[in-house]
Amino acid sequence: MSGFELAVEGIDYPVWVGAREEIDDRLNRLIAGRDLLVVTDGNVASVHLESFRASFASAARLETLVLPPGESEKTLAGFERIIAALVAGRFHRDAVVVALGGGVVGDTAGFAAACYQRGVDWIAVPTTLLAQVDAALGGKTAVNHPAGKNLVGAFHDPVAVWIDPATLASLPPRELRAGFGEVVKYGLGFDAGFFAWLEDHAEALGMGEQAGFAAVVEHCARIKLKIVAADRTEHSEQGGRVLLNLGHTLGHALETALGHGYWLHGEAVAVGLVVAAELSRARRRIDPDLPTRLRRLLHALHLPAAIPDALETESLMQGLALDKKIAGGRLRFVGLEAPGRAVAWNDVAADELEQAIDAARTRP
Amino acid sequence: MSGFELAVEGIDYPVWVGAREEIDDRLNRLIAGRDLLVVTDGNVASVHLESFRASFASAARLETLVLPPGESEKTLAGFERIIAALVAGRFHRDAVVVALGGGVVGDTAGFAAACYQRGVDWIAVPTTLLAQVDAALGGKTAVNHPAGKNLVGAFHDPVAVWIDPATLASLPPRELRAGFGEVVKYGLGFDAGFFAWLEDHAEALGMGEQAGFAAVVEHCARIKLKIVAADRTEHSEQGGRVLLNLGHTLGHALETALGHGYWLHGEAVAVGLVVAAELSRARRRIDPDLPTRLRRLLHALHLPAAIPDALETESLMQGLALDKKIAGGRLRFVGLEAPGRAVAWNDVAADELEQAIDAARTRP
Repeated sequence: MSGFELAVEGIDYPVWVGAREEIDDRLNRLIAGRDLLVVTDGNVASVHLESFRASFASAARLETLVLPPGESEKTLAGFERIIAALVAGRFHRDAVVVALGGGVVGDTAGFAAACYQRGVDWIAVPTTLLAQVDAALGGKTAVNHPAGKNLVGAFHDPVAVWIDPATLASLPPRELRAGFGEVVKYGLGFDAGFFAWLEDHAEALGMGEQAGFAAVVEHCARIKLKIVAADRTEHSEQGGRVLLNLGHTLGHALETALGHGYWLHGEAVAVGLVVAAELSRARRRIDPDLPTRLRRLLHALHLPAAIPDALETESLMQGLALDKKIAGGRLRFVGLEAPGRAVAWNDVAADELEQAIDAARTRP
Repeated sequence: MSGFELAVEGIDYPVWVGAREEIDDRLNRLIAGRDLLVVTDGNVASVHLESFRASFASAARLETLVLPPGESEKTLAGFERIIAALVAGRFHRDAVVVALGGGVVGDTAGFAAACYQRGVDWIAVPTTLLAQVDAALGGKTAVNHPAGKNLVGAFHDPVAVWIDPATLASLPPRELRAGFGEVVKYGLGFDAGFFAWLEDHAEALGMGEQAGFAAVVEHCARIKLKIVAADRTEHSEQGGRVLLNLGHTLGHALETALGHGYWLHGEAVAVGLVVAAELSRARRRIDPDLPTRLRRLLHALHLPAAIPDALETESLMQGLALDKKIAGGRLRFVGLEAPGRAVAWNDVAADELEQAIDAARTRP
């Protein structure tokens, strides 16, 4: 594989996919003579920091801020730690923040870059599958508030995204697999051909074979960037970024009902996709066989594909109501108009959803 | 006077100037059926809150957050207080934040609006002269950091600005007069005709006659908005928003050298203007009479017009060096190319500035 740059109309920053020696030149042209603050976390730093440091050779100055790993940094406290490092280092308005890590590092460092001196440049270097196919793409930055996720943030595009699929080799296997929940979402909701490709390669991908990762990452990034380009600030009600919530309405409710930590985000999304597929089948939008194909694919990728028996439909429905997804007794829900074509519905009745949830108890 | 709307090419939000009964209709069309959080401070609330509340009648919901008065709220702590109120009130993405007050309230509430849910609408209702002619215009929001002013913020245009000149009647006289420091800046640096108008009306304005305030505010707002429209995010090095720093390089140094609180910001800017005029006269860009005219105007407006004898030139120069305005031994400095035509110079030598400072010791 040689490094390449994704070109998507309407996205005016480069997204590089490739190994360090393939991307170095392009990167160094961007940062030449500038001051860099690399923000990362303890886990990523121990594996990747030294080798990545070599990639920033043309910078005038390179400082590093290593945050404690984990969701606790995706808060205003973590944001302020990054601001304090920028202030203490007397970084100017032409400084560059590099976010090296997963979604927590990217979302928090990107938000700090959005606000420091009313906005400095930042480069996203995502090191998890979830961040490479989702969080690092699209310019959304944010931190959590005790009352809810991503409540404080900004739309602030990076000046470049650099995806090195080789970083995935060092991910804990379960975290890597969970990332495939989002990968399957892109196939199911946005590209039927990619869904079929995933089915063909599910076994190798499920075994963790690196060879296919670059293709997966490239394909997902391209799909997401196209959607983002058409709806930068998520103001479209019916299409655009809202469709990226496919599998997420139920996914979030599952995470809440099962307790955070029981399933990783991507695992909950996987089961959310099954519910979306079942509901779409009940509405006769898709081939009755598609939910079964989806279950088989998730199974081959070692992802959960069914709602746990112990979890009652009622408590799941309560989670949805709290999530304020219900409008006028009807649910806003992203389903499938056809395979590879997600659609936002505003008219899903509670009993319709309950039936889809029950159908999603079937095991593959 | 009847209310009117300033139209400036490139500024895509309305700037209304007028009393409540003149603006109410336009305002209520904008906020009809939406949830409002009015952010203000204790001083403003005691004078204006009840009467302004009547102007928001069409809102679906009206909540109020009264911050303690003063610069201490223009911090991340004040920002978080506003975010907490938005979260606690379960405000949605279509909520509107109303900033009712001076620069501290506007800058902090505007920044909170920029970040809550990645950006909600806000309306600026400035109640001080300084905010009406400067802070509330141009979309700059920010809070201070212990290490420096305005270090954390965002460019986030309001959806409307409502300037009610009648609010100026309740300002403490010294605060009102200090605002004229910025007013004179607009004449001196950007509009020679307005400078002459100010000279003609200086006596009435200096007596605090309300009649002229609406004209002053309108004129200044128009000048600032034109500059902002051409340079929204302050990326122009030579022209654009940088020119608005006329009088401010010395002004900030004076505030630092004399201790914050000795002079109000607008008072220090007034003397900074005299230094800029003296330097421009030494460079033979302006009529030798202009510094004298400027001193007379400031005097009539009850503003300081000379550097205090007790303050040594050396300590002022040190403040400038700390402010990182020196580049390669030369100072970046906004002067006058002609009356009403500010210009950014990058080549001002230290001794040239010292002479201008000494010339600015002359009393009117």
